[in-house]
Amino acid sequence: MTRPRLLSPNRRDWLAACGALLAAGTATGLAGCAAAPRVRGTGDLGVVIGRANGTLTLVDTTARAALGVVEGLGDLSHASVVFSRDGLFVYVFGRDGGLTRVNLLTRRITHRVMQAGNSIGGAISDDGALVVAQNYTPGGIKVFNAHTLELLADVPALYSPAGAPEPRRARVVGLVDLPGRRFAYSLFDADAIWITDCSDISNPATQKFERIGHQPYDALVTPDGRYYIAGLFGEDGLALIDLWAEPLAVRRILDGYGKGEQKLPVYKMPHLRGWAVAGRHAWLPAVGQHEVLIADTETWRLAGRVPVAGQPVFVMARPDGRQIWVSFAVPDYGHVQVIDTQSRRVIKTLEPGHAVLHMEFTPRGEAAWISCRDDNRVQVIDTRNFETLASIDAPSPSGVFFTARAARIGF
Amino acid sequence: MTRPRLLSPNRRDWLAACGALLAAGTATGLAGCAAAPRVRGTGDLGVVIGRANGTLTLVDTTARAALGVVEGLGDLSHASVVFSRDGLFVYVFGRDGGLTRVNLLTRRITHRVMQAGNSIGGAISDDGALVVAQNYTPGGIKVFNAHTLELLADVPALYSPAGAPEPRRARVVGLVDLPGRRFAYSLFDADAIWITDCSDISNPATQKFERIGHQPYDALVTPDGRYYIAGLFGEDGLALIDLWAEPLAVRRILDGYGKGEQKLPVYKMPHLRGWAVAGRHAWLPAVGQHEVLIADTETWRLAGRVPVAGQPVFVMARPDGRQIWVSFAVPDYGHVQVIDTQSRRVIKTLEPGHAVLHMEFTPRGEAAWISCRDDNRVQVIDTRNFETLASIDAPSPSGVFFTARAARIGF
Repeated sequence: MTRPRLLSPNRRDWLAACGALLAAGTATGLAGCAAAPRVRGTGDLGVVIGRANGTLTLVDTTARAALGVVEGLGDLSHASVVFSRDGLFVYVFGRDGGLTRVNLLTRRITHRVMQAGNSIGGAISDDGALVVAQNYTPGGIKVFNAHTLELLADVPALYSPAGAPEPRRARVVGLVDLPGRRFAYSLFDADAIWITDCSDISNPATQKFERIGHQPYDALVTPDGRYYIAGLFGEDGLALIDLWAEPLAVRRILDGYGKGEQKLPVYKMPHLRGWAVAGRHAWLPAVGQHEVLIADTETWRLAGRVPVAGQPVFVMARPDGRQIWVSFAVPDYGHVQVIDTQSRRVIKTLEPGHAVLHMEFTPRGEAAWISCRDDNRVQVIDTRNFETLASIDAPSPSGVFFTARAARIGF
Repeated sequence: MTRPRLLSPNRRDWLAACGALLAAGTATGLAGCAAAPRVRGTGDLGVVIGRANGTLTLVDTTARAALGVVEGLGDLSHASVVFSRDGLFVYVFGRDGGLTRVNLLTRRITHRVMQAGNSIGGAISDDGALVVAQNYTPGGIKVFNAHTLELLADVPALYSPAGAPEPRRARVVGLVDLPGRRFAYSLFDADAIWITDCSDISNPATQKFERIGHQPYDALVTPDGRYYIAGLFGEDGLALIDLWAEPLAVRRILDGYGKGEQKLPVYKMPHLRGWAVAGRHAWLPAVGQHEVLIADTETWRLAGRVPVAGQPVFVMARPDGRQIWVSFAVPDYGHVQVIDTQSRRVIKTLEPGHAVLHMEFTPRGEAAWISCRDDNRVQVIDTRNFETLASIDAPSPSGVFFTARAARIGF
């Protein structure tokens, strides 16, 4: 495993740090100023999920290196994370309902709670005060104090199926943060989208949209926080809410979007979180087809299709919107393709490794980090010349997440 | 002055930090683990320029408080800053040609060079390796190693005026970073735009565009890094380069933009850096008029005008693009107005204090920080209900800058 490295940019800074510590000087019996002082910035940190062994590999996107490993995160077979707004803490949502807060500089777990039996991700409020988990079992969301993981609110996803004697709890998917301590999410079993306003955390207020379409299975919010879009597992098309409209209403868009009439085998339902908005267009994975679709975000009509090398899973825009990077489902998941958004053509096919599960761009997009599960490594690729800049060991890597997400809406 | 505060989120983290330091354990004779360990994130830090006394007030956007003051920055009467990609260092470009690197956690100056006689700002490369200053005297740009401030390249802005016996050096304005270690800037005296590619720093390559319009005085790049736009002091209209086109070419847009035929007194040329791009539209300050203009970024034609309370200086989009905040020139600079981008109307007029010089949004836009020079304070305003969340003492504050800029193109 990669050992911790000295990361203070130069010895002069380190000495200054030691001097500052000394000057502050409340003696606590600590014998030495550490060889690896953690007086460093957090803007270039990130984590790689180790899905097989419940670890986080902490990484540095400037040095393009691993900094260390944190263990004991539980079942990370479908894990996601959010970051505190200062970039110091990562909140890890495990599949087993574990919610864990890790300090990225001390590399220690500070808090951990088992908050549900089966969980599928989470979000953090714009002000960084509230962390929210979306749960399958028991179905609903739970709101936690971001500093202590104390439970502040529990919103069960209750619905009344036709003919059922009493309400049931729906599985919750597609949770995103919205500006103003609000959270939007979808109820898979209830064909519903709910928006919960936690600005008064002692009294969360939930607005409910029913009959939005059959079985919403994932969702996203556009980078401006304006459009919440849920994918439908049970029928074609997508459910959209314009969050800037008054009153709020759900409408159906892209009616042909989904498994369609051909009923091709779908190896993996694409992640909607991976959707890319570049300029005026949204780029999205076709379901089951070897295509990336282009939608016009002003009309939400289909504006184009780009043939690609397999069933797309993640379709992600480089931060500047000039390129779209596409990962694939089995059996094509040894490839990544790059589309130029101007010519709308594949300009590069990469073979970064075996079982590509996720990708993440550095904040300004000069590099892409690609997790190759079966190679136990993350490949760092230059997005301009497609050279491999670094190859980082990580056990069965899946999700790659950088702290810059803390500054963005809907991540 | 505000005293440094304990910022470790809780004592448990702090003890964990001490433990980690102890475990790392190379004894250096330091007697104690400090009472104010600086094991903290840098994602919520920022600086406020003290223009009258050459100071930086360091601030925390989570606590909404000042953390301390760094002195000795020289003449900051027209200063700007950029941040290292880890968020640990701020680079301050002083009017007197001073370039200073400050560690935000130790609150010390780590490096300082007098690199020119008269300077007007700077930029940092996307990979964080290069810091570039734009200079009036001697006219040109200088490229520095971001870690050491060692001079790596000097590009004099040489041009040959008609009839002059030898080349002269033009004043450089409107410097921005572009993806791929490239920098675009304008030559006020030479009616030119240059783009310097520093990817091979031992051999910077400069592409020159001549006769782009008379006296470019400031410029910006759109948040996607696609369009470089220079304002013209000597005539109406703006010069634009689509950086995604091949070959690159300058074209004129918004022919009516400028002082126009009416020749109203212009109290302050608006800052183009303040231009806001929200969705498909750019919002820009009219020159001399009490108006904010709206341009369509697909056609670069005028798409609307919004009357406001004075001559606009900064026209800034909340990160989600829902609101535009406008500050004004003398005599109306006690006001700030908020425009709703959907209705295109002023929805709020604020009076945050005297002599509003700058504004900065928190990364996800829940708050705006407004510097009120003559009140010696920065007001923190909730962008949803417009309540004042905090009021922070700072001497003659002008620019307010947060570390999240490090993750954005063109900041």
